[in-house]
Amino acid sequence: MRIAMLGAGNVATHLSKALINAGFPVAQVWSRNIENAVDLASQIGANSIAKIEEVSTDIDIVILAVADDAIAEISNRLPINADRVVLHTSGSTAIDTLNKHQKFGVLYPLQTFSKNTDLDFSQIPLCIEANDDDTLNQLNLIANRLSNNVVFVNSDSRMRLHIAAVFACNFSNYFFGIAQDLMSGAQLNFDLIRPLIQETASKAMEKKPVDVQTGPAKRNDQNTIKKHLELLESEPTLKELYALLSQNIVKKYSES
Amino acid sequence: MRIAMLGAGNVATHLSKALINAGFPVAQVWSRNIENAVDLASQIGANSIAKIEEVSTDIDIVILAVADDAIAEISNRLPINADRVVLHTSGSTAIDTLNKHQKFGVLYPLQTFSKNTDLDFSQIPLCIEANDDDTLNQLNLIANRLSNNVVFVNSDSRMRLHIAAVFACNFSNYFFGIAQDLMSGAQLNFDLIRPLIQETASKAMEKKPVDVQTGPAKRNDQNTIKKHLELLESEPTLKELYALLSQNIVKKYSES
Repeated sequence: MRIAMLGAGNVATHLSKALINAGFPVAQVWSRNIENAVDLASQIGANSIAKIEEVSTDIDIVILAVADDAIAEISNRLPINADRVVLHTSGSTAIDTLNKHQKFGVLYPLQTFSKNTDLDFSQIPLCIEANDDDTLNQLNLIANRLSNNVVFVNSDSRMRLHIAAVFACNFSNYFFGIAQDLMSGAQLNFDLIRPLIQETASKAMEKKPVDVQTGPAKRNDQNTIKKHLELLESEPTLKELYALLSQNIVKKYSES
Repeated sequence: MRIAMLGAGNVATHLSKALINAGFPVAQVWSRNIENAVDLASQIGANSIAKIEEVSTDIDIVILAVADDAIAEISNRLPINADRVVLHTSGSTAIDTLNKHQKFGVLYPLQTFSKNTDLDFSQIPLCIEANDDDTLNQLNLIANRLSNNVVFVNSDSRMRLHIAAVFACNFSNYFFGIAQDLMSGAQLNFDLIRPLIQETASKAMEKKPVDVQTGPAKRNDQNTIKKHLELLESEPTLKELYALLSQNIVKKYSES
């Protein structure tokens, strides 16, 4: 089993290392920026290639871990090879984007990857999909060597899952950043709020978030909401967010 | 040192138990709902009282752990006693709400409390404030026996901190709930996204959230944002939130 990795960003890097640890050598690395390809290739003992057309004929699996809007173009430039499986790693790109090829699928790791942050890949949920049963079985075998948490998810559900991830991860982190900014404005160290963030996540590990909502909006405490909106008068972006979120939460919990 | 606890909700319960563990007996418990007072009193070996006026003259510290909009009224009903310290535990209530008394202050625990969730109180940040130095010193001594994380925060900064907590905890949990709802709509188990939530919080423990933002809006990936908004067409509340948050994130990161 020989693998070529197209892309050298966060997902390509974490996935390449996990593949090697699981006994699947990554033989070739391509990236639009050749320096990134050389860098990743040197880290994992692979060869870097300058052109997509240089993907070797003996490569069994080609993984496109690239920006979503580059997947179609790169898939189209990749030479057809009937024995090869072509995969992408995107949450919101339909499997059919790869349908120029004969065997294709999706390996979507549901996690937030950052440079210089080590992750235990075996704990990362991998969502897989393939265009036929043989390819799905092959992908399933590989995925199960990488992670203990492999699920079959079709393209429609995967996009819904990606949106869920944007709310749960990206938008939440944005709110942690708002907290950071509000606190520096009052000369308060961000450390002060870290236990609260940790506990908020810990509660979501054991309970359903919908069942453990707290705060002024949950209590429909309009006095406190009003005071907060007054203090945010000089920061219209935050005021608008605070008002909209509070209104939604009040509505959700007063109806139930 | 004898303490009376006015209130029998989540904060009153967790704080009473922490006080007792730290060697400060809670002698009396009052609650608007006498059954709740009896219940908490029996858990902590205190006496329940039916009226605020029954707070004993030998009580040194009275803690108002009640709903924000009840603090003023309860403070006014509480008999004046020159030697006594009167405290509230609210994030967004000014210390002056208690200024009918001679010695008064605030003990605000920055944490989310739920029934049936045990917390290590020694790790909870306690924000304290008092109307004079003697009272502050007394409060500081008690707070330091309860927690390793005691900070002086005045009423203005405390309200700002409370707003930060609403974003970081209440609004984030609401987004975890949106993820939960989106996933059940696709028959996906919420377990699938729990590692992502945990990792999002873990990153905030070590890094500044503003520096580790990820996702389509951070990358200004308008194709993905557009696909997500299309999928959310039938859920206008979520679509509005997604659009507003994405727009704010794009703006924040394209400016920097």
